[in-house]
Amino acid sequence: MGKIELKADERIDEIASSGVHIIQSKEVFSFSIDAILLARFPRLPQRGQIIDLCAGNGAVGLFASSLTKANITELELQDRLADMAQRSIEFNHLENRMSVINDNLNRAMSYFNHSSTDLILCNPPYFKVESDSRLNESQHYTLARHELTTNLDEIFDISKKLLKSNGHIAMVHRPERFFEIVDKMRANNLQPKWIQFVYPKADSPANILLIDAIKDGKQGGEVFLPPLIVHHADGTYTKEINDIYYGKD
Amino acid sequence: MGKIELKADERIDEIASSGVHIIQSKEVFSFSIDAILLARFPRLPQRGQIIDLCAGNGAVGLFASSLTKANITELELQDRLADMAQRSIEFNHLENRMSVINDNLNRAMSYFNHSSTDLILCNPPYFKVESDSRLNESQHYTLARHELTTNLDEIFDISKKLLKSNGHIAMVHRPERFFEIVDKMRANNLQPKWIQFVYPKADSPANILLIDAIKDGKQGGEVFLPPLIVHHADGTYTKEINDIYYGKD
Repeated sequence: MGKIELKADERIDEIASSGVHIIQSKEVFSFSIDAILLARFPRLPQRGQIIDLCAGNGAVGLFASSLTKANITELELQDRLADMAQRSIEFNHLENRMSVINDNLNRAMSYFNHSSTDLILCNPPYFKVESDSRLNESQHYTLARHELTTNLDEIFDISKKLLKSNGHIAMVHRPERFFEIVDKMRANNLQPKWIQFVYPKADSPANILLIDAIKDGKQGGEVFLPPLIVHHADGTYTKEINDIYYGKD
Repeated sequence: MGKIELKADERIDEIASSGVHIIQSKEVFSFSIDAILLARFPRLPQRGQIIDLCAGNGAVGLFASSLTKANITELELQDRLADMAQRSIEFNHLENRMSVINDNLNRAMSYFNHSSTDLILCNPPYFKVESDSRLNESQHYTLARHELTTNLDEIFDISKKLLKSNGHIAMVHRPERFFEIVDKMRANNLQPKWIQFVYPKADSPANILLIDAIKDGKQGGEVFLPPLIVHHADGTYTKEINDIYYGKD
């Protein structure tokens, strides 16, 4: 592993059983199951360009790097998180095919050509900024969770520009915003095609949405993939989740 | 049970373990699991008016009659199927709260007042009429399966007129037409709110869609109910399906 400097609050974790490690901090930012589920959700291109939008400390792209040899760029607004992602790339010796851009995603076209990207991965802020939003978390978590610096319209507008025709965007989000996401994707020529719902338990409503859309894809024929159930009734992980975290037997 | 006359090709079956019986015919029409899943899907009003649109031989409304005391009207275009439904109502002595209208659903407003209905149940034809559609089944099955005499636009236009504000329409359909259904519901002020996907096996994509929309409901906050899985890997029914068919232990 590369030699890197850790700040006082930081630690290094392995992402699932991928062999890839990540710098985290409970105070600043730690990845969640959503990042893991997103990275293994789409069919990853084995070459070409992948961009991880709203990358945070880089978990989605770092985990994806264990599943593909394509180039992966992490795009993250927050300096501290982008710095963590950069040091994680160095720690894993992935500089030859991973990089970080520390900027607002609305400036993405300063860094990439139009229609240059094969796949966008995006784990965006989930929550609308409403008068009753509780924004009293740490600033890093607040920006990661609430649509303060970006929103779905902007993400899909940029994605439409970045993606090749027939390129994909795969996103993780909340099911209660599913129709809004579908509407806004389609308004940007991103046709949702594969959807997977994640359920905390077999008898609970879905709490995570995974959605994969094709730029310039044709309408109709959407596919709802097998349900992903996270926990057994006794709270232990199901086989599907164990396989994702620890690999198949 | 009432005394009724059966035609040569007809038989009488019990619907699940409901105690309600139905006249069927392999040559003409027999209900499928879709009808059972639809009838138990929405919260059924315990009084007021339920209409079963595209009723076929009446399975959805007949099964629903075992779960509610509300009035239920079966609306069916095909004479033969409407006649089977009528005789099933008589056989079950349900004439006091069930009836059949044998007409085109585009004439529904000749029979009901605007904003008179609490719930619409609808198991419509699933398939678009396209040049490559194979329409070589029996005429009864063809009309029940293909959008020859009605379509989603018409069904939702009529439903919007029939339903009270905050009344519901619950529909069973195919997942590959989900976005089209959602679009057309919303174009008629029917806001999809509860969705449940049905999977033939735990590791298969969904093959049945259940969707419940509210007239004049507000947008957002859609709920994706726990997945319904029909078969175990060995082909036997799961507990959920056994419970629906044979009642809970």
